[in-house]
Amino acid sequence: MNPHRVFNFNPGPATIPTEVMEQARDQFLDYQGCGMGIMECSHRGREFNQVRESAEENLRQLMGISDDYAVLFLQGGASLQFSMVPMNLASGQQPLLYADTGSWAAKAVKEAKLFAPVQVVYSGKAQNYARIEDCESWEMGADDPGYLYVCSNNTIFGTQFHRFPEYPEIPLVADMSSDIASRLVDVNRFGLIFAGAQKNLGPAGVTIVIIRKDLAARSRDKVPTMLKYSTHIEKESCFNTPPTFSIYMVGLVLEWIKKRGGIAGVEADNDHKAALLYRAIDEGDFYRGTVDPACRSKMNATFRLPDESLEAEFIRQATAAGLVGLKGHRSVGGIRASIYNAMPAAGVETLIEFMREFAKANG
Amino acid sequence: MNPHRVFNFNPGPATIPTEVMEQARDQFLDYQGCGMGIMECSHRGREFNQVRESAEENLRQLMGISDDYAVLFLQGGASLQFSMVPMNLASGQQPLLYADTGSWAAKAVKEAKLFAPVQVVYSGKAQNYARIEDCESWEMGADDPGYLYVCSNNTIFGTQFHRFPEYPEIPLVADMSSDIASRLVDVNRFGLIFAGAQKNLGPAGVTIVIIRKDLAARSRDKVPTMLKYSTHIEKESCFNTPPTFSIYMVGLVLEWIKKRGGIAGVEADNDHKAALLYRAIDEGDFYRGTVDPACRSKMNATFRLPDESLEAEFIRQATAAGLVGLKGHRSVGGIRASIYNAMPAAGVETLIEFMREFAKANG
Repeated sequence: MNPHRVFNFNPGPATIPTEVMEQARDQFLDYQGCGMGIMECSHRGREFNQVRESAEENLRQLMGISDDYAVLFLQGGASLQFSMVPMNLASGQQPLLYADTGSWAAKAVKEAKLFAPVQVVYSGKAQNYARIEDCESWEMGADDPGYLYVCSNNTIFGTQFHRFPEYPEIPLVADMSSDIASRLVDVNRFGLIFAGAQKNLGPAGVTIVIIRKDLAARSRDKVPTMLKYSTHIEKESCFNTPPTFSIYMVGLVLEWIKKRGGIAGVEADNDHKAALLYRAIDEGDFYRGTVDPACRSKMNATFRLPDESLEAEFIRQATAAGLVGLKGHRSVGGIRASIYNAMPAAGVETLIEFMREFAKANG
Repeated sequence: MNPHRVFNFNPGPATIPTEVMEQARDQFLDYQGCGMGIMECSHRGREFNQVRESAEENLRQLMGISDDYAVLFLQGGASLQFSMVPMNLASGQQPLLYADTGSWAAKAVKEAKLFAPVQVVYSGKAQNYARIEDCESWEMGADDPGYLYVCSNNTIFGTQFHRFPEYPEIPLVADMSSDIASRLVDVNRFGLIFAGAQKNLGPAGVTIVIIRKDLAARSRDKVPTMLKYSTHIEKESCFNTPPTFSIYMVGLVLEWIKKRGGIAGVEADNDHKAALLYRAIDEGDFYRGTVDPACRSKMNATFRLPDESLEAEFIRQATAAGLVGLKGHRSVGGIRASIYNAMPAAGVETLIEFMREFAKANG
């Protein structure tokens, strides 16, 4: 019997491709005939080594990551990176530049201030984060900054950078937690990219860090061993026991991406899904997108209904119809459909059908 | 068809009870009929909330943890705790006291020195860590120390504290990564207990922290948010996305412990397994235990054979016989059998049978 599966629009932890879940289930107790589940294998043994190496190799190939960069599998989520980035990359005197495009960037700013002077070069706050202004208008006057920090996609407000800042002389740091591997980016334009895996790449519990090796060398001696990027580069993410099962799941998801034509393949699918959904939002007066169309996220589509009681009813009926996780973030309300790599087009089509019927019945 | 399962003596990640693995596999794609795997559920949703709350409640009940203590599920392993403990508990002036019973304690000392003066009150180094001297002989003269730190079980050397230091006026901090929930301890005697889950409680990727709440209040303002215990106490381990699947697995293992008579039940089994194995080591001249019998670990039994080439052959033949993970830590060599909670008595009995035959053939 096939397991019951809903369309899961949760913002993260999020849906994982059913065929990846089946593969993990089928070898759960016995990984490739070794007589142990992969989560029971030593992190220094042959089985897990292959899993880790192959995950790294696939990520390098898919994203076009050169040998100038290290690829790390760490713990603590993006939230720990909010501290690790300035802890390792700040010299103490150089100002750190941050673009405030919503809650996540604001949290990153708070941590950075513990380590160095911070300059917020842009804030979307006055516009309630409904758009991201082009970087030409940012206040970039700081002298010799340590880096420029952006959050590439804001899951709460539903905005996304469609063009990244271009200041080749300043290392660009990006929190790509909610859109890594969903579209092609030129990694060479970044100094450091980090992302929790639990949206586009697998389960919670592992954080991907892609760091230009020369930046990792900046860390000062007084940084604790586990919080130094150089520790994990030197030990290939095995300084201590890594989150082996989560890394294994990321590996399976990367194989799945390869089979779909790589990141160009999933990007085409993501463009298609987002276009369908935003068209449905825009097609009448019942639904109202919350974001400037030019800045809309292809990962998290946010919209409102005529009133809050209708929104509650929308969520209730959608859940009953097997469309779950559509409630907007508690800080902003409304509806949010998270349509990451693993959301099939059929999920978006079913949602759109539901939206049309709901609008007809309640409009 | 039953999956092929070996007896897995790995030191961690380690064997997980087969019935727990089966349970996790059976609901892998559809957790309790919700249409999603638990790893795809929101960390703020009903399903995962119940998982986390029930895991905490079971751990409290099994270990007898009072409301004076918080129970946290964090990331980063024991190695991150090596830094978090002094980062949060040191005042900067008070000396921190450490007992050096081998590699792990030594690594903890290194991190603590970044935050405060450290006094090593005992070191087993001169005896090659083959025993742990009673705490009455320790150099406890420091004035107003911040805490006293021990590692309750050393996985590499195979030693274990069978009696903890008694200095009621000094908060006792214990790294119990390799023997938590394997024996009854009086939690009230500790200020802070931490443990990576991947030996006795589940998979890698989640760290249990049991902390007396008044100690958590010591943290200074400049500690990064994610590295403050108070952050995670306030947000019940959900300040950011926790490692949900690993916590779920810990929950299943705790239910399994309950069914076996709680910690008293698994402790009786562990005593029995260790007694059998050490008797087999001691019964002739072929095997030689490496640790003072009074300090032997009930979790990791370490022993040598007459020469290294025999040890290599022992490991080769054992592996072929379905007894895996018996190689000693690379820093010390020899044989190590890790017999945590989830190792069935049948595994130890099969190992002993193999040892007897191997000794007869090669003695």
